[in-house]
Amino acid sequence: MKVLVTGGAGYIGSHVVRQLGQAGHDIVVLDNLSTGYRWAVTAGELIVGDLADEAVIEEVFANHRFDAILHFAANIVVPESVANPLKYYSNNTRNTLNLLQAVERHQVPYMVFSSTAAVYGMPDETVLTEDMPLAPINPYGASKMMSERMIMDLAAASDLNYVILRYFNVAGANPDGLLGQATPEATHLIKVACECVTGQREGMSVFGTDYDTRDGTCVRDYIHVEDLAKAHVMALDYMARGGESRVLNCGYGRGFTVNEVIDVVKRQSGVDFPVAETGRRTGDPEALMADNARIRQTLGWTPNYDNLETIVGTALAWEAIWQKRKDSPS
Amino acid sequence: MKVLVTGGAGYIGSHVVRQLGQAGHDIVVLDNLSTGYRWAVTAGELIVGDLADEAVIEEVFANHRFDAILHFAANIVVPESVANPLKYYSNNTRNTLNLLQAVERHQVPYMVFSSTAAVYGMPDETVLTEDMPLAPINPYGASKMMSERMIMDLAAASDLNYVILRYFNVAGANPDGLLGQATPEATHLIKVACECVTGQREGMSVFGTDYDTRDGTCVRDYIHVEDLAKAHVMALDYMARGGESRVLNCGYGRGFTVNEVIDVVKRQSGVDFPVAETGRRTGDPEALMADNARIRQTLGWTPNYDNLETIVGTALAWEAIWQKRKDSPS
Repeated sequence: MKVLVTGGAGYIGSHVVRQLGQAGHDIVVLDNLSTGYRWAVTAGELIVGDLADEAVIEEVFANHRFDAILHFAANIVVPESVANPLKYYSNNTRNTLNLLQAVERHQVPYMVFSSTAAVYGMPDETVLTEDMPLAPINPYGASKMMSERMIMDLAAASDLNYVILRYFNVAGANPDGLLGQATPEATHLIKVACECVTGQREGMSVFGTDYDTRDGTCVRDYIHVEDLAKAHVMALDYMARGGESRVLNCGYGRGFTVNEVIDVVKRQSGVDFPVAETGRRTGDPEALMADNARIRQTLGWTPNYDNLETIVGTALAWEAIWQKRKDSPS
Repeated sequence: MKVLVTGGAGYIGSHVVRQLGQAGHDIVVLDNLSTGYRWAVTAGELIVGDLADEAVIEEVFANHRFDAILHFAANIVVPESVANPLKYYSNNTRNTLNLLQAVERHQVPYMVFSSTAAVYGMPDETVLTEDMPLAPINPYGASKMMSERMIMDLAAASDLNYVILRYFNVAGANPDGLLGQATPEATHLIKVACECVTGQREGMSVFGTDYDTRDGTCVRDYIHVEDLAKAHVMALDYMARGGESRVLNCGYGRGFTVNEVIDVVKRQSGVDFPVAETGRRTGDPEALMADNARIRQTLGWTPNYDNLETIVGTALAWEAIWQKRKDSPS
């Protein structure tokens, strides 16, 4: 298939691009390189451009006849979205609309969209099915919920088919050390802990130790980026086989506490670092895990990297590689 | 106050502009005249321009220092939104974002936003409070829900205060015959029935006669446009007094069935016309009425035109005036 990957130079996008290349797809990456990197695009063609620019989009679609769009490009930092909501509604929601207008004009048949468990907000349940009500509590989650809705409504009015993937906590890196999370100022737990190991951070905070969990810290469902990437490739195959539009959670269905994650990072790296226990943050649910029955059944997806040691191990290995690469002339 | 009224040449906007003028406000109307009319702007200055054009918005804001924005401009036809969702996400949601970016840049303190009971979707209750979950079932309602959310999130991150007004079924016309609904291809029940009276339509349909209501047809909460307009003027006063941001239902809290409305139109006009009873439409809840306790308490709003005869009478009078005006040289 001829596929357009927006945000394909970023963390998750770059892992998907690599797998798409291995699967033999013909790839065009559109990325503004605001947080992505040229080196991360290991297959296909990179076009540097911004989805805010409708002329750029039209040019890309005029030059290529795409069978599918995989739409990763987005801002993803929750606290920033609270402070600057219009940035998120512009770069996430409006830019998705810009892309959808091209999808409609050029009658692209398939779309895979990067959504997030943040669309669920603060649910009453801890294991979430895709049918839970959507109630995002921050502009990041709301911007993704709006994008989902626009995609669904366009699909209902046209021949577009979609798979919307709601990511839980994505972590880890390509096990060969080729790719990993290089996002500046990342706020993800495992990335932050790895930066403590390499000395880029002096220490880190744990937000809330009085939750009703096994050690008092929040429980999250960490999914390895290669397993997540595989879901995207399988979603394309599913639609090409005639599969109907679906929303699918991406997670392993079990969780680890913040302290468990930090302990594994320290144990595997052999490096200790200071951890400050501070109060709860607003908007952190106690425990969030994916019910992944639907993705298993719909796509036939099964994970290959479903253990915390592998997630942390690949993340640590990448962090060491990335630190050396950053500091050396490219 | 210096106020910008987007969509001020339209049905509801024009009634609000007239009342704002009477209240002594300094008014700039921004309208693309796609469904509005120059003659409908009876106070202030009209700028013909489109909210899709960010340069136009910036020019308007650069030339005027607004104390408040009243944002009416939108597409409002539900079936069209289902067939062409991206038109609604563009003209309603994205254009609201464009406007909000100017509001943020120029630090406008107050905003009144035209929302709709369509954000509630198909609720379990028939009398709706503002705290009901939002679950719009069509792109029109979703486009308005998204606009609400962007306004709320910007307000949370800035000094902006807002009043979001969720309209139930707006009908009627200025009782002096100065203004009324002149929207082409309107789909509102009372407007359609009035067009049957004047002979512009040969007849009309009733969608569903087997609902569990007093006569089997759907119950809706019809609010007179002058009472609704008054709520906007009072919302400005409320914010100027330091009132906190609020979402307020706009309705009378009681409903009439479709057949009751048609009967009043026929009785008051003395004109009979064919009514075809057809099956239910998808997405029509049985009964929808506003719990209006909050707007009464927050704004001190009370209705002046709360009876169906007045709503229908002013609508019929306007329809006759509008037919003559349309057919004569302007």
